[in-house]
Amino acid sequence: MNMDIKTFLNPPREEWSGLVRRTSKDDSDIGAAVKAIFETVRKDGDAALTAFENKFDSAAFSSAEDLLVTEEEIAEASASVPGNLKEAIAHAWKNILAFHEAQLPGTVEVYTQPGVRCVQKAVPLGRAGLYIPGGRAPLFSTVLMLAAPARVAGCPEVILCTPPGSDGKANAATVYAASFCGIRKIFKLGGAQAIAAMALGTGTVPKCDKLFGPGNRFVMKAKQLASLSETAIDMPAGPSEVMVLADGSAVPEFVASDFLSQAEHGPDSQSILVCTCEDIAAKVKAAVASQMQKLSRSGIVEESLGCSRIIVLENREDVVDFANAYAPEHLIIAMENPWQLAGSITAAGSIFIGNYSPESAGDYASGTNHTLPTGGWARSFSGLNVDAFMRKMTIQELTEDGLRSISETVRTMALAEGLDAHAAAVDVRMQKL
Amino acid sequence: MNMDIKTFLNPPREEWSGLVRRTSKDDSDIGAAVKAIFETVRKDGDAALTAFENKFDSAAFSSAEDLLVTEEEIAEASASVPGNLKEAIAHAWKNILAFHEAQLPGTVEVYTQPGVRCVQKAVPLGRAGLYIPGGRAPLFSTVLMLAAPARVAGCPEVILCTPPGSDGKANAATVYAASFCGIRKIFKLGGAQAIAAMALGTGTVPKCDKLFGPGNRFVMKAKQLASLSETAIDMPAGPSEVMVLADGSAVPEFVASDFLSQAEHGPDSQSILVCTCEDIAAKVKAAVASQMQKLSRSGIVEESLGCSRIIVLENREDVVDFANAYAPEHLIIAMENPWQLAGSITAAGSIFIGNYSPESAGDYASGTNHTLPTGGWARSFSGLNVDAFMRKMTIQELTEDGLRSISETVRTMALAEGLDAHAAAVDVRMQKL
Repeated sequence: MNMDIKTFLNPPREEWSGLVRRTSKDDSDIGAAVKAIFETVRKDGDAALTAFENKFDSAAFSSAEDLLVTEEEIAEASASVPGNLKEAIAHAWKNILAFHEAQLPGTVEVYTQPGVRCVQKAVPLGRAGLYIPGGRAPLFSTVLMLAAPARVAGCPEVILCTPPGSDGKANAATVYAASFCGIRKIFKLGGAQAIAAMALGTGTVPKCDKLFGPGNRFVMKAKQLASLSETAIDMPAGPSEVMVLADGSAVPEFVASDFLSQAEHGPDSQSILVCTCEDIAAKVKAAVASQMQKLSRSGIVEESLGCSRIIVLENREDVVDFANAYAPEHLIIAMENPWQLAGSITAAGSIFIGNYSPESAGDYASGTNHTLPTGGWARSFSGLNVDAFMRKMTIQELTEDGLRSISETVRTMALAEGLDAHAAAVDVRMQKL
Repeated sequence: MNMDIKTFLNPPREEWSGLVRRTSKDDSDIGAAVKAIFETVRKDGDAALTAFENKFDSAAFSSAEDLLVTEEEIAEASASVPGNLKEAIAHAWKNILAFHEAQLPGTVEVYTQPGVRCVQKAVPLGRAGLYIPGGRAPLFSTVLMLAAPARVAGCPEVILCTPPGSDGKANAATVYAASFCGIRKIFKLGGAQAIAAMALGTGTVPKCDKLFGPGNRFVMKAKQLASLSETAIDMPAGPSEVMVLADGSAVPEFVASDFLSQAEHGPDSQSILVCTCEDIAAKVKAAVASQMQKLSRSGIVEESLGCSRIIVLENREDVVDFANAYAPEHLIIAMENPWQLAGSITAAGSIFIGNYSPESAGDYASGTNHTLPTGGWARSFSGLNVDAFMRKMTIQELTEDGLRSISETVRTMALAEGLDAHAAAVDVRMQKL
């Protein structure tokens, strides 16, 4: 079993840019195929969806009506989900809702000067479209992560697409979770055709104002394409990753378990350990070798560890700088004074403090969202939160005095920009005062 | 002078989708050119920037050092801006800052259950890249609109690109405004090459975490391209637009002036009047015909009025529904009980209440941001605000008891998703407790 995780001892700063780089996959080969799916869905609507599902997901749908998960299917799915999993889902949902409810933005209201009232008001997306992949890994936990902020934001309509399996049915846990979260329209529809349907709208699948959720490269390419001219999307996608910062206060077995839980996500997942002494690195390596024996996904884990790295740095300051240079999706801080260190982190998706906050806690049930920016996108994007399901509109009202008091400023600026009708819109009002 | 604004009397709802449609321009013809510019900037860096500026903007730069606006140029620009314009800029800046300061998000902290602490913390973008077009319309007001939220968010670095004119210099008002707003790095760099430089980074222009600002179709295409794999962007772009909702309480001359101030933005700008009686429509038309005589940009205005429409609807409810179906960038409500009506608006960029709140007030000085979603994107995007210059990271800390209390939930969900290393990360910790 290959356990030779690449280790770098005090790499000089000029080498850091190489060490924080992610391997990016070229997806230009599928661009034309995804575009063709979009154009077919645009042209043929529902008929295209049925045909694509029968072709790509081996479904045997006779019409687009078959796409919608029925009440019977929901009941059947619910009956097949074990009681302890239902309890776990309810528990996680409660925590996720609680944290997201606290994020709900209030209305901002300011008189920027007497008679000039400015308001910023958040309103929910009218229709949110969620995507949940099918296949071997049934990501029902992601249903909760997408549905909770949508619920808290107050989105009047939330739909969900997930591909059917070879039996023509959607994954039972996914269907149960969606139904539990109050989602009424669940479509057995996957891949680029699901994204195209939600982006463009068909007779059966309504056009959505924003699309959310993970997927394979076809789904991701389709979301990119949709974002150019049809609808908004949550964030760019990439392989999952964790960075663990560790000093002498870390428990090597815990660090190893976080390393491995990241690694099992997929062969291109990346785990990075940044630590302040070689001793920890050695102990974590030993613990990884020992723990990975017991895992069912050892093939994936082994491949993923090939993308992983251990970086030994001299001091806390270097550790912070390296973490910010990498901008990890998940950042575990198993070091002394973790909150003080977290205060210096400028780019990360979600941070896990101390020895008893494993990534899996946030993946499922602590209450934070697990839909997070990967691949360094934490420098530009937030993790999924309530804001993502809302838009902020501004409102202004000027009294006669308010307009009078800014009229000269507006006039002067408008004329300097060569926009005399803008100045005239103030003048025509001032003449009436 | 063509004053025949297309008017629709009580169009049935099934015709609304045609009436709210925007004309979209196909920009696929410039995709290859923009891509080529990106690839050249990626390959040749600074040398490419100099060459493109000399080619496209008739600059005579000998090296990339010439791109940076010097202290002397800033002083010269400042000297050339008249005192009353400086006062106007300072006045507008004060109001814009005041409204945006009120938007600064606080930290959210919740114990989702005892021992499970979840925090959401907003951090500024590390480096924001602003773009301001050159040419005949010197959009110095947009400098304030982009710089104010960046300042309030606390972005440590803000850079600005704007193309040089044929004299090799950037527009004086733009340079003055940027310097006034505290922007230290102003580059004489325009078009797709400016966007490529800020997205990729070169020796002279640093790579930015997000790009903001308007531009021509090359700039917009370049921002789209950048958003796919290099950096984030503010929002999709499109021609500017206003919708005015009017009833008997509206002053037709005021409505006409707002119509015309929108129309002068460009030949593809759109103004829509939605009113509850034909009488208002007729009076507004007459006032438009009279007022447009005096405008310097009458050619543009006339062409733009060709894209404009007047819709007469029967009642307030229809007016609200039509406005929401259109999702206007700017929405002026010149009707009785305007706040009550505004409360029913679910999609608009910015709303202007009553007779004394012309769009030009918000364009320059009320305090709201004038960078707003066009083309129906208000259904999916907010207007520019402080959030756009920040990211929200989450932090969680579980005590031993906290982890214990969610351990069974995490285990159950992880195993149901087939992720046993995720369960093991909890188990290894529970064994130590």
